[in-house]
Amino acid sequence: LRKLAEEQGESIETAARQARYGFFANIAKKRRCKSVFVAHHADDQVETFLWNLFRGAGQSGLAGMSAETEHIVNGVALHMFRPLLGIWRSEIVEYIRVQKLRYREDASNASHDYTRNRIRNALLPEIEALFGGRNVSRSIWRVAEIVRAEDEWLDALTQSESTETLSVPDLRAQPVAQQRRRILKWLRFHGVPEPGFDHIEAVRQLVAHTEPAKVNLPGNWHARRREKKLFLEKPKP
Amino acid sequence: LRKLAEEQGESIETAARQARYGFFANIAKKRRCKSVFVAHHADDQVETFLWNLFRGAGQSGLAGMSAETEHIVNGVALHMFRPLLGIWRSEIVEYIRVQKLRYREDASNASHDYTRNRIRNALLPEIEALFGGRNVSRSIWRVAEIVRAEDEWLDALTQSESTETLSVPDLRAQPVAQQRRRILKWLRFHGVPEPGFDHIEAVRQLVAHTEPAKVNLPGNWHARRREKKLFLEKPKP
Repeated sequence: LRKLAEEQGESIETAARQARYGFFANIAKKRRCKSVFVAHHADDQVETFLWNLFRGAGQSGLAGMSAETEHIVNGVALHMFRPLLGIWRSEIVEYIRVQKLRYREDASNASHDYTRNRIRNALLPEIEALFGGRNVSRSIWRVAEIVRAEDEWLDALTQSESTETLSVPDLRAQPVAQQRRRILKWLRFHGVPEPGFDHIEAVRQLVAHTEPAKVNLPGNWHARRREKKLFLEKPKP
Repeated sequence: LRKLAEEQGESIETAARQARYGFFANIAKKRRCKSVFVAHHADDQVETFLWNLFRGAGQSGLAGMSAETEHIVNGVALHMFRPLLGIWRSEIVEYIRVQKLRYREDASNASHDYTRNRIRNALLPEIEALFGGRNVSRSIWRVAEIVRAEDEWLDALTQSESTETLSVPDLRAQPVAQQRRRILKWLRFHGVPEPGFDHIEAVRQLVAHTEPAKVNLPGNWHARRREKKLFLEKPKP
C-alpha cells in the first residue's frame, strides 16, 4: 500500500480505500453480487468524525460515512450498505453474547492505527470525564448525522461544474458556502489535484476582490480572472 | 444569574447572554451608538466549537460565532461585530507587545469556566501531540468556518414556518436535512420550548412512517398526523 500510494501520489488512506474497493469489485464480478454490506458501527462513525475534524477535513470531509453509497470501481457499480452505523459496539457485543453467535475478529482491529486507538481509548474517556460523565460519543454521533444529512442536501443543490469558466458576478451573488462548493466541484472536474480549503479561499479572492487577478493551485495549475470570468490554466506538459 | 435562569427556566448560558445583551442595549440607547464590537478571537471560536460538539449541539448549534449579527434587545436593534474571529490570541498578544499598547485583562478570563479552561490548556495540547504536533486548532477553526457558512446558507433556504400545519407529502419529498430544519423552525414558531434533535426526529417519524400518529414534545405539547398534515396541540392551560 505504501508503495502504491507513493506511485500514485496519494495518501495511504486513499490508496487503501481504492485497494479495498478494487477487491470488493473483483469478488462482486466473480460472484455476480453487487451489494456489499460492511459492519462499521456508531463508534467507528464518531472516531472518523473526530479524526477528520482534527486533521482538518475540508468541504464534505466532516460528513463521515453514509448508510448507502454507490461507487463505480473497475467498471463495476458497487452498492455499499452500512446498516450498523446507528448501533454501538457495546450493543453488537451484547447481541452476540445473548444470541451465542460465533464471530471473527478482524486481525487489523488489534493493530488498528495508533491514533485511532488513542482517540477511542484515551481521548474520548477523558472528554467524557471533563463533561461530568456525559455521553459525549452520543453527542458527537448526533452532530455527525446532522452534518451528513446537510452535506447530502447541499451536494444535491450544487450543480456539477463542467463548464470552462465560472461567472464572477454569478458567484458573487451567492452565499459564501455555495461559492465554496461550486469552486471545489469546478476544480475537481478540471482535474486539479486534491484542492483544499486554502486553495478554494484563494480562488474566492478572485471573486471577492479586484486584486489579485491570478492565484496558484496544486499541480502547477492556476486560476485567473479576466472579463468577469474565472479561467483555469493547464500545467505545461 | 443563577436565580434569573431558574426563574425563567433557562440555562445559565442563555440567561448570561440575555443579561449581557440587555446591558449592551441600555448603553447603546444612552449613548446613541448601536454598533457593538466584541473581541472574540480564533481560539474562542475553536473552544466554542468543541464545547458545542461535546455537549451535543443540535441544528445550527455547531455553527459558532458570526462576524456580524443583529439582535433586537429591549426594543433596540443591536449590531454586533466580531472582527477578531480570524486572529489567534497569540497574534493579538504579540501585536500588543510590539505596539506597546495598554490593555485590560477581563477579570472573568481567569475564572473563566473550568471546562473551557481544560479544553484550552489540557485537551487541545493533547490532541496536538496525538497528531504529531499538527496545528489542530487551525484544522478545527477551518471546519468551524465551513460549517458556519453552510449553516447561514441553509438557514436562508428554509422559509420561516409560520403555518398552522405542515404537509406530510411535501416534507416527505424533501431531503432529510431540510425536513429537520423546517420542523425545528415550525416548533420554534409555535413556542414549543427548546426542541432538541430527538424531538425533531420523533416528529420526522410521523412523516416517514404510518405509525405512530402522535408524539410527545417538551412543555406538554404534542404533534399529530391527520389527513396528511402535521398539527401541534397546545398544552392544557
